[in-house]
This record gives sequence, structure tokens and C-alpha cells, in this order.
Amino acid sequence: MTAYHRLEERFRRIGAIEQAISVLHWDTASMMPEGGAAARAEQLATLRLITHQDLVAPEVEELLANAEVSLNDLGEWQRANLREMRRRWLHAAAVPGALVEAESRACSECEVVWRRARMQNDFAAVLPGLERILRIEREIGAIKGERLGTSPYEALLDQYEPGASVALIDRLFDEIAGFLPDLIEGALDRQAALPPPIISGSFPVEKQRGLATRLMERIGFDFAHGRLDISAHPFCGGTPDDVRITTRYNESDFACALMGVLHETGHALYQRGLPAEWRLQPVGRARGMAMHESQSLLLEMQVCRSRAFLTYAAPIIRETFGGAGPGWQIDALYQRQIRVRRGFIRVDADEVTYPAHVILRYRLERAMIAGDLRPSELPIAWAAAMREMLGVAPDNDREGCLQDIHWYDGNWGYFPTYTLGALIAAQLFEAARRDIPDLMQAIAEGEFAPLLGWVRERVHSKGSRLSTAELVESATGQPLGTASFERHLRDRYLS
Amino acid sequence: MTAYHRLEERFRRIGAIEQAISVLHWDTASMMPEGGAAARAEQLATLRLITHQDLVAPEVEELLANAEVSLNDLGEWQRANLREMRRRWLHAAAVPGALVEAESRACSECEVVWRRARMQNDFAAVLPGLERILRIEREIGAIKGERLGTSPYEALLDQYEPGASVALIDRLFDEIAGFLPDLIEGALDRQAALPPPIISGSFPVEKQRGLATRLMERIGFDFAHGRLDISAHPFCGGTPDDVRITTRYNESDFACALMGVLHETGHALYQRGLPAEWRLQPVGRARGMAMHESQSLLLEMQVCRSRAFLTYAAPIIRETFGGAGPGWQIDALYQRQIRVRRGFIRVDADEVTYPAHVILRYRLERAMIAGDLRPSELPIAWAAAMREMLGVAPDNDREGCLQDIHWYDGNWGYFPTYTLGALIAAQLFEAARRDIPDLMQAIAEGEFAPLLGWVRERVHSKGSRLSTAELVESATGQPLGTASFERHLRDRYLS
Repeated sequence: MTAYHRLEERFRRIGAIEQAISVLHWDTASMMPEGGAAARAEQLATLRLITHQDLVAPEVEELLANAEVSLNDLGEWQRANLREMRRRWLHAAAVPGALVEAESRACSECEVVWRRARMQNDFAAVLPGLERILRIEREIGAIKGERLGTSPYEALLDQYEPGASVALIDRLFDEIAGFLPDLIEGALDRQAALPPPIISGSFPVEKQRGLATRLMERIGFDFAHGRLDISAHPFCGGTPDDVRITTRYNESDFACALMGVLHETGHALYQRGLPAEWRLQPVGRARGMAMHESQSLLLEMQVCRSRAFLTYAAPIIRETFGGAGPGWQIDALYQRQIRVRRGFIRVDADEVTYPAHVILRYRLERAMIAGDLRPSELPIAWAAAMREMLGVAPDNDREGCLQDIHWYDGNWGYFPTYTLGALIAAQLFEAARRDIPDLMQAIAEGEFAPLLGWVRERVHSKGSRLSTAELVESATGQPLGTASFERHLRDRYLS
Repeated sequence: MTAYHRLEERFRRIGAIEQAISVLHWDTASMMPEGGAAARAEQLATLRLITHQDLVAPEVEELLANAEVSLNDLGEWQRANLREMRRRWLHAAAVPGALVEAESRACSECEVVWRRARMQNDFAAVLPGLERILRIEREIGAIKGERLGTSPYEALLDQYEPGASVALIDRLFDEIAGFLPDLIEGALDRQAALPPPIISGSFPVEKQRGLATRLMERIGFDFAHGRLDISAHPFCGGTPDDVRITTRYNESDFACALMGVLHETGHALYQRGLPAEWRLQPVGRARGMAMHESQSLLLEMQVCRSRAFLTYAAPIIRETFGGAGPGWQIDALYQRQIRVRRGFIRVDADEVTYPAHVILRYRLERAMIAGDLRPSELPIAWAAAMREMLGVAPDNDREGCLQDIHWYDGNWGYFPTYTLGALIAAQLFEAARRDIPDLMQAIAEGEFAPLLGWVRERVHSKGSRLSTAELVESATGQPLGTASFERHLRDRYLS
């Protein structure tokens, strides 16, 4: 067996264990009784340790080197697979075990403190933990950066969005920051002239679930290969052949769960569409978090908040809940889906203000990793950034720098992927409308197969064969930019 | 670290992986969409291979030997743990890899053929597969028997019921076979004089589930550490801190699911009551399949089919389904729970005829393993044994030697544990009634804590510290026998 094939065998085993971890993670969030938590933590830690040991075993480095000298014997997918193996090995092997353990302990401890600190609006309580995590993340970033030939912050980014460059993100985010304030202003002005869309009532969970699964199936979610369940924090998990998405229901507002399900369905369709012949191999996985988010935002924001989609869905929504009257008409439902608001909370934000939340976090975390901003200065820096980006700022940390778990749980470099995903989604959808005649008409008639086929061919089936930049350009004919996103926002919110 | 502690560490890891396997197995049966089957098979095969490799790694044999020379340094539980480690290692390491693989393949292939053969009543179709499995099981039995110092059949038994002796089982089963025919005859005679108990109607799944969970909780099942779900074949799985039981509902008969749930609840309480300080270690596990079955039969047969239990439960059952009239009275419900019938199918059998089904299978599988009975002769031998044990025989193999999966899936030596479990259950319950004043009165009032406390202390908390024989004797003051079981049957069915 060649070195490459021995690597494939090893990564197949790692991939199978990671699938098991993913199913157990879903179970933890959606099925497990609370008393199972400690035992589950040990099961997951044991399986994670096994995959880590498999990945950093001494022979892997040798196999990688041997396989890389015989690159010409490999096909295109195999070469890409080998590149992804190298990348995964590098991230796993770069950091000394003691530092990995220190990170894991610091994050577990800080997360607990953060939950209470957020509730009690007590930033000072969590500051020592945050400082400790930052020290560790800076060290990890420096070590990985040296191996990757990148800055420390880019090395952290690379964990979530392989190959992401700060130069590109800076340029894109600066462009967005340039046009966003006027756009928000304009959207709010236009919106103020409309009557506020109101539907009130009680929407039983079973009806909401029925509506969600009906639309999921219509869009292309295959329940022979997936499930929809309930969890406190909605997510998409499971495996490509068995995709598990979750939501939570609010009986006084059906749109929250519905749009959440459609968002997760976008993630799910990506998972399901990954290349079956490369299952369990690194190259068969989703490209990165930006591309993953682009698939959820393509479905939720681009498709399902469009007037075309509501043309199809409004009668089904009315039928589900027995709705009648002006609030239930297509246009009223549409206006309801595109409300803009200058809020404090990222996860509640609309697609217009969302990038502002992301950009300010990106700038702050970069400054902290660079050593230019101390955690103790975060509350003041946060308020200043909010006022600059959104024109409003909360008078407390609970709705400010304590609102997101990411920094307190070691996920530094993750935030930018949300907005990169929004840019990719807009660019993909614009390209799809160009390539598929009458796409919006098809959507208005509830026909999603043309779009799904397009995105399967252009994105899902590629797995991780290309870089994100190559994938965007090959799918849309253009390098990643902000123009499609800006056009989308202007069309929807200003015209 | 001593050899013993290194073994504990290794078995802790094996135990955690086995817990993960158990949760995934539950998911496969109760949650997984059909399209996830192939990926799940690979996940499970990968995890099973890891535990097998961990168990048979060369250093384990050395560690066991080193630990065993320092027995005096170990406490009582540690010594028992070491004995169980040795036993697990022996079963895993005794058989060459090629034979393990041949068994696995033969069973997978035969099981598929068996499903069709049973449906089509075509024993000839599955005969070659059965012959192949028998050859393999005889070889495994011979190899393990040599290592264990037992006969081949006892070595197979030992996989499910450690330390079981054929001499004891023969004696117990011969005693049962001696009194059973008259007892069945007598029970049927007495029953014939009673009006047939009939409740008909429609029993919605949600109401059945509500009744089941209400009784489960009352009996002591803790939903903070477990769940009740649906699967095609009811079972008890999960882990001691997160016990997952399943059932299936028949809307025209509430008693099937209810008694099934109470049976699995018995298994679940055993799991839950295993010694927490020995979690993940071999000595912390259930003692064997006979003891496990004793716990389900103790609850289902001894407790929940008693008139005392129905005194408590009848009003709740009536309230659940809005039942009224003579069929819903305590005595009518009780008579319904203790109907006896000479049937062909083991899984539908009542507790009086059940041992007959088990004894004939035990005798036939022993004869096949010994080489005294050829699989081709099985249908004729089956009919003869049925007539001898039960006085009736089916005119087809579907209701005869094709009915159970065990032989076609490699589970030779399993059958006796059902009836050993019934004997232990009767003996335990008799001892509990002797030790706990007014136990039946407590049950009639829906008070189960005294019984649960007794069985927790005497059985559950012991894990695998004692052998089954020692455990029965320490809990009841008597060696395992048939007297309690016979008294129980005579009391309930003849007096």
C-alpha cells in the first residue's frame, strides 16, 4: 500500500469516529436527559482523544512527506485530499499537548463563569478568565502562524476558514462599512413609511413543525437521510447521510422557528450534497465555515425572505394556521421578513445590520490578538465601535461584549465567517439567477430543483477540492467581492 | 503506576467507547432515518474494532499477569475487577482474528437469508448458512473451552452468563420439566372455569405512553437519567447514568406495551443501580444475562402481574382510558395478565409455558454443539421436543425452528439465561417478601421504594463483584433452585 493509501485508511477511521462524535453531540443537545451529562462528556473526550492521537501519531508526518514526494501518482481529488490531510495534521500537531490541555481547561472554566457573568452583567467577574484565554490563543496563533506562514490572527482564522487572508477580509469589510450606514438609514426611512406588519395569535408547535417539514421537503430535504428535532440552540449536525437539524418553537411567533429551520436546511443541503465518493476523507468535507454559512444564508436570506418565496409560501402559511386578513397577505408577510432594526444583539439582527455586528467583533478580536487592545478595555471599545458602526450602544455589558460565547469559549477568528458567508450567498444567488432563466418565477411556484441542482453542481459536490476563493470564483465567474451583496440589499431594502 | 492501575485506565477508555456504542445502537433502533444505515454500520464497526484492539493489545496480557502476582495489594473490588478484566481479555483474545471475521461475515449473511426464509417458511434456504455458523460456533466453543477449562457449550454460555455450569442448568431444567406439564394442565383447567377476560377498544399511543411513564416514575425510573422511546424491537440500552428503554404500541391492546415497558424498566433499574464508583470498569457492569433477565422478570412477572399491583394500578388504568364495566375491575385485569396458553411462539408465551420453550432450545443447541444433532434434522427434532414439552407442535417451521433469530445470528448459549432469570426472579421476590414486612400491601398501595431499596442493596450495587451463584445466595440465603419458582407458579395459577 502506498503512503497515500495508508493515509486514506487512517483518515477514514478518523472520519468514522468524528461522525460518531457528531451524532453523540446531536444527542447531547436534543435527546439526552440532564443526568447523562457527565458520562457523555467522558465518552466525547475519549473519542476526541482517539482522533487526536490518530492524527498526531509519529508515522503520520512520515506518511505525509512520503505521499507528497509522489504527487504525480495521484489524481486531482487525491492531491486535494492530501493537502487537506496536511492541513488537519498541521493544526493538530503544531500545538504542544500541554497547551491544548491548558486551552481546553481555560475554556471550560471560563465558559461557566461567563454564563453567570452575562446573566449578572458582571464583566469584571469573567475578565481574568478572558485574559487567560487570550494569552493562550495568542500563543496558539503564534505557533500555528509560524507553521502556516501567516500572522497569528490568520492562523486562528484558518481553523474555521482555511486560507482566509486578513488583507482580503479588511478590504471587503471596509467596503461594507463604507456603504452600510447609509443603507441602514435608507432602509429605516423607507420602512417607517409602511404600516407595521403585525400578526398575533397562538401557533401550536405541532402546526409549526408540520409547516416546517412540508417546506423542508419541498425545498429538497430528504427525511430518509435526516431528522428535525428540538434543542435550546438550533444547529445542523449529524452526518452527510443522516443530517440532524434542530430548532426551537415560540408559540406566539411562528416566523422564528420557520426561518431558523430554513436556515439550518441550507446547512443540511450542503452536508447532504457533499461528494459521496469522498465520504470520511478530509477532501469530502464542507469547505469551511464561510461556505457553510453561505449555504444557510442563501436559503434563508436570499431565497426564503424573497417576495417570490412568499408568493409560494403565503397560502401554505395561511392554510397551516387558519390565518385571514391583511396581515396574512403576501406583501405583509414579506415586509415582516425584512424588518430592519438597530439592535444590540447579533443573533437577533436582520441581514442589513448583521455585518455591522460582525465587523466590530472582527476588529476588536484582531486588536486583542495583536496586543493592541487589552480585555479590560473591551467594554469601552465595544461601545465606541457600536456607535460608529450602528449609531447605538447598550448601556450594559450583558447586551454588549458579554452577549456572545465565542471569545469565552476559545473561538477566536470565527466571527468573520458569518459575513463572508453573507457575501458568498449574495454572489452565488446572483450567479444562479443569471444562469437559470426564470429562477425567481420557479421559486414563486415552489420549484426549488433548478436552484438546488445548480448549487449541488457548483458548490456542494466539490467538497474541499478547491479553496474557498477558487470555489467562489469557479461557481460565480467572479472573485469574492461585496458588489452582489450591496446590490441585493439596495434592491430589497431601498427600491 | 502499577500494572493494575494501568489496566483500570485502559478499561476506563474501553468502557467509555462501549458507552458511546450503546448510545449509537439506541439511536440506530429508535431515531436514525433509514438512509443513515450504511454510515452508522461503519461508525459502529470502527468503534468496535478500537475496543477490540485495545483489549487484545500485547501489553494487556503482560499487565494482567503482573497485576495478578500482586493480588494482595488489591482491595476486594479491585480483585474482582481484575478477574473480570481477565475474563473479558480471554474472550477477546482467545479466538484468532480470521475466525472472528468469519463469524461476523457468516452471521451477517445468514441473518439476511433467515429473515426471508422465516417469512417464506423455507428452512432449506437457510440450512447451509446455519450449518456454516454451527461449524464456526463449535470451533469457537472448542478454543474458548480449552482456555476456560470448560466444555465447548459452557464456553459459549460463558459469553452471556459467566461461570454458568451445564451440570447446574441440567439439574434445574430437569426439575422444571418434571413439574411443568402438570402445572400447565392445572392452570388451563382452572382458567377454563373462568369467563374469558375481554377488554376491547382503541387505546391512543399518547395515553398509553402517559400511563407507562406514570407507572415507570412511580416504580422508581428517574427521567433525569433516562428516556422512553419507540423501536420495532423493545430493548433497554444506553448507559447507567442515561438509560434508554424502548417499546412499541398496539392501539387495540394497551397491555402489550405496558407490560413491555415494565419489563424494560426492570432492566433499566438494574443498570441505573450499578455501583457508581465502578462506572466504566468491568466489575461495575451487570453480572450477566441471567441476572439482568431476573430484574426485568422480577418487575414484570413477580410484581406487576400480581393482584397486589393491579389493586394499585387498576384505577389508574381505568382513569387513563376512561374504562368502565366488569372487564376493568381489578380481578378481571388480573386474570387477563395471567392467561396461560399452549402456543408455538416463545416471545408470546406466558410465564408458565415459557420455560418449556427455553428448555427445548437449550437441549437442541447443546446437542448441535456436541455434534449429536445435525441442523438438517432440526425441524423434526423441534416438533418432537415441542410435543414432549408442551403437548403441541406447529405444522410449519416458521412457527417452529425458524422463529428466533439467535441461532442464525451466532447467539448460541443465550437461551438458558431467560429461564435462569425467571428462577432468580422468583427466588429474589420470595426473599424480599420474607425480609420486608407487608411488601405486598406496599405494592397494593403503589409503594415500591421498599422493594427497590432491597434489590438495590442486595443485587444492583454489587455489579460483577460476585459470581451469579454467589450473588443469588448472598441475596436470598439459598443457592439457586427451582423451589421458589414452582411455589410462585402454584400459588398464582393453581390456588
